[in-house]
Amino acid sequence: MVALQSLPRDADAVATVVGILRGRLGPRLQTGEAFRRHHSHSATWLDAQPPDAVAQPESTAEVAEIVRTCAAHRVPVVPFGTGTSLEGGVNAPGGGICVTLAGMDRILAVHAEDLDCTVQPGVTRKALNTHLRDAGLFFPIDPGADASLGGMASTRASGTNAVRYGTMRDAVLSLEAVMPDGRVIRTASRARKTSAGYDLTRLLVGAEGTLGLITELTLRLHGIPEAITAAACSFPSVAAACEAAMLAIQSGVPVARMELLDALQVGACNRYSKLDLPEAPLLLLEFHGSPAHAAEQAETFGAIAEDTGGTGFRWTASTEERTALWQARHDAYWAACALRPGARGLSTDVCVPIGRLGEAVEAAQAKARAMDLLAPVLGHVGDGNFHVLLLVDVDSAEERAAANAYVAWLAELAWSMDGTCTGEHGIGQGKRALLRRELGEAVDVMGAVKAALDPLGIMNPGKVV
Amino acid sequence: MVALQSLPRDADAVATVVGILRGRLGPRLQTGEAFRRHHSHSATWLDAQPPDAVAQPESTAEVAEIVRTCAAHRVPVVPFGTGTSLEGGVNAPGGGICVTLAGMDRILAVHAEDLDCTVQPGVTRKALNTHLRDAGLFFPIDPGADASLGGMASTRASGTNAVRYGTMRDAVLSLEAVMPDGRVIRTASRARKTSAGYDLTRLLVGAEGTLGLITELTLRLHGIPEAITAAACSFPSVAAACEAAMLAIQSGVPVARMELLDALQVGACNRYSKLDLPEAPLLLLEFHGSPAHAAEQAETFGAIAEDTGGTGFRWTASTEERTALWQARHDAYWAACALRPGARGLSTDVCVPIGRLGEAVEAAQAKARAMDLLAPVLGHVGDGNFHVLLLVDVDSAEERAAANAYVAWLAELAWSMDGTCTGEHGIGQGKRALLRRELGEAVDVMGAVKAALDPLGIMNPGKVV
Repeated sequence: MVALQSLPRDADAVATVVGILRGRLGPRLQTGEAFRRHHSHSATWLDAQPPDAVAQPESTAEVAEIVRTCAAHRVPVVPFGTGTSLEGGVNAPGGGICVTLAGMDRILAVHAEDLDCTVQPGVTRKALNTHLRDAGLFFPIDPGADASLGGMASTRASGTNAVRYGTMRDAVLSLEAVMPDGRVIRTASRARKTSAGYDLTRLLVGAEGTLGLITELTLRLHGIPEAITAAACSFPSVAAACEAAMLAIQSGVPVARMELLDALQVGACNRYSKLDLPEAPLLLLEFHGSPAHAAEQAETFGAIAEDTGGTGFRWTASTEERTALWQARHDAYWAACALRPGARGLSTDVCVPIGRLGEAVEAAQAKARAMDLLAPVLGHVGDGNFHVLLLVDVDSAEERAAANAYVAWLAELAWSMDGTCTGEHGIGQGKRALLRRELGEAVDVMGAVKAALDPLGIMNPGKVV
Repeated sequence: MVALQSLPRDADAVATVVGILRGRLGPRLQTGEAFRRHHSHSATWLDAQPPDAVAQPESTAEVAEIVRTCAAHRVPVVPFGTGTSLEGGVNAPGGGICVTLAGMDRILAVHAEDLDCTVQPGVTRKALNTHLRDAGLFFPIDPGADASLGGMASTRASGTNAVRYGTMRDAVLSLEAVMPDGRVIRTASRARKTSAGYDLTRLLVGAEGTLGLITELTLRLHGIPEAITAAACSFPSVAAACEAAMLAIQSGVPVARMELLDALQVGACNRYSKLDLPEAPLLLLEFHGSPAHAAEQAETFGAIAEDTGGTGFRWTASTEERTALWQARHDAYWAACALRPGARGLSTDVCVPIGRLGEAVEAAQAKARAMDLLAPVLGHVGDGNFHVLLLVDVDSAEERAAANAYVAWLAELAWSMDGTCTGEHGIGQGKRALLRRELGEAVDVMGAVKAALDPLGIMNPGKVV
């Protein structure tokens, strides 16, 4: 949607690098159009900008060799996980070599007694959880998509569980990374706590591949809760729903998931998932703990909901009922898209201090109505983070312009409440101008870090800074 | 204890800077010997290296002016909070200006509904908690000492609550900082989650003042738990105590504090605090939650303790009994020092994956015995982090050498278990060589970041990298 700039390219350098890498990787270096297009595709509203070639390494040593070769010829390196970035993270505006980590998908070690594991970056979160299940462990970060763990770390992903289990910032204990000059570093030990020097782990988490390429992750795990209860409750207004969420957090109820669907989204889910929920703001919740504690949490929340005008509150410890209750949430994106066949769903996110959330969501709804945009809202309300899904005819220049204006307006709204223009989607290409508006001179400090670690500017150029 | 190097000094430049700053700050710029010595004193075993002058700014603008003046003349800037660093963080090996933040001690805002607050760096954790109490809120990070929050952020402090509430890495939402060129930046908004660019907050947390000087912190707060229960349990061995701790974590019991005292430390506490605890490895625990949940946690732990050989388990919901139970822990340092009057207690810490903790502590005890060192152990066992307090006659070159050799050996032990040479004390001057051994080329990446942000090398020189 945003008019994307291309960066200058050196066709000779690219040809040289492609020749060298083909010699090394054989058929694991692809230059076909379909392959290249696939690897610039992402769940985004930005136009695709394909790379010149796609390399599929199978080891850290191969990644390092690819990066060294690209560095020697100043050719861009664009990492690729599963292509679920929402802000153009995998586009190649200056061409170059896409490095797909899909082939590096081994779970290297599970240390059940230490509650951690070490994986290659191409392992997806669902694959990891399937592997862990028999050990009674799970990895909690759930951004919706079955994203790769390397990509999730690179974009500092979070999602529905973050209110209790944190984001990728909290989940990553240590990384192995190939730096822009081809050096391989390990950022930390496997200890849960460290004060050993600068936090390079957190510097790479959320850097969107612009400072180095993650080749191994050591992740914190959790025991599968003994009991899981789920609950749903309708509210007379978004503000009332957010008030209930805030009170639950303030009371110290360790809610595992707390998701807001606005009335428009609930209606969409009713039609798509054949449900008959009241078409009013809805909170979906999940509680983890011992059977007694999970039940107590649900009951405490029920009392809070009653005080804030909630209706139809019900909770359940049955797996079947819980699965049914969360089905609407899992299918929310597709349900929303079905509200306007032919349109594309363009998801944008902001995050505000939790006390301002109700006001923020109501303002966002009012603005969408005023601009004639069909835009259901989903919120990770325990974090103050919410998504507006703009249903837009991407062939209409007018609608595209309106959507862009809305995104900019929403960022302004978040800033006016001391929030951020992105809680979990990242900056990518889509929000670079907004980042500068949000953090001012701090972006120059980011630029200095980038210039120091990637002086040639080859790592995922055109992103973040 | 470690032979400290001095860095080259330019006496003329220092005199110029002192003259300029005296003109600006008047009596808030001190050069007296006692004042200078006080501001290089820390709870450390490193010799003191006083600064040339101590500046006491009262605003961010004054801090920025001090830093700009120092930068113009290439004079070192050494930040000072409360002087409780354990690794020489406040020493001035190249002289220069100590910037004490003690005067910047205002609590700027408490956003109860958002569960956060914004404070100046000189506010101590106890002052903050006193201020918050009436609002039903608390700030959980508790490193023992009543340290300043700016210092705690700079050293990535943690302590007894970290197993449940995390470390300063998790507690800081946003920072205002004066960078080495005098620019003032804000690293993030007040939102609880963000994916807006590089994580400069986490880059400054733990940088020990070498990348910039923290002038404001926005911190996450928590509601004071409705109920707090405390428990104590003796074990036949350190390994059994650690096994119980590990099982509690694996079972998802959200223990708020879980502290190990070895038999030597328990004996010291008995004598110092007039208690009659069995002189065997002891776990002290605290549980937070609703009354039912806090009780359930204590009972669950009791069952685990029984399975692992624990004896004398008792828990209590009474504030008086809880305070008495924790008194031994709070006075542990002084109790240990009293084991050998005239000796100094030199505290070192390492952190290992939690499954290796029992083995690590037992090896650390055996090594101390073999080296004839009196060295009680305290452990934050939920994190895999433990402290060995070496009781050393600092006038004996032989004992100093033995203590240094022990610290190096303990780091080797931690590395052999994929742990770190410091879980919460930091690198400072004391562990720079160990940092290089631990992380290898990653330290060069840290050095590149340092050189990019502080090209003149004026910010707390001689520390970390």
